Amino acid sequence: MLKAIVYVTLRESVLDPQGSAVKGALHTLGFAEVADVRIGKYMEVALETDDREQAVERVREMAEKLLANTVIEDYRFEIVEG
Amino acid sequence: MLKAIVYVTLRESVLDPQGSAVKGALHTLGFAEVADVRIGKYMEVALETDDREQAVERVREMAEKLLANTVIEDYRFEIVEG
Repeated sequence: MLKAIVYVTLRESVLDPQGSAVKGALHTLGFAEVADVRIGKYMEVALETDDREQAVERVREMAEKLLANTVIEDYRFEIVEG
Repeated sequence: MLKAIVYVTLRESVLDPQGSAVKGALHTLGFAEVADVRIGKYMEVALETDDREQAVERVREMAEKLLANTVIEDYRFEIVEG
């Protein structure tokens, strides 16, 4: 078994309202040192394969087709022992 | 400037309906090798401080108070140069 750890984040140029809301809440709680907050998705995808090369190809396909909205999001991933 | 990279994930014992929905969609798209999907949050928190020890303490406080729902979620983080 292998596992893909996938990170999906908004592109730098895209506004992050969720991040801004969390920043405001942290300031309200007294964490004035917070300068910026960016929020993304973190996914663990368990794969029934031991073929690392194939896994890289397939996870890239999964990200392009479903896991990330590539118009406004960037993605990166790593394949680890599952 | 320092930056905290925070990972918030559902506890193993907690059902992940969003993960199950993504798994189903991946299967529909033909990715039969996907055995399981767990989805969490990935946050980058920019901090106006260079005091690493203080940053660790404060980010732990932020996670406990706001960033994670510690009843159903686990969190971990790392402090990197910002």
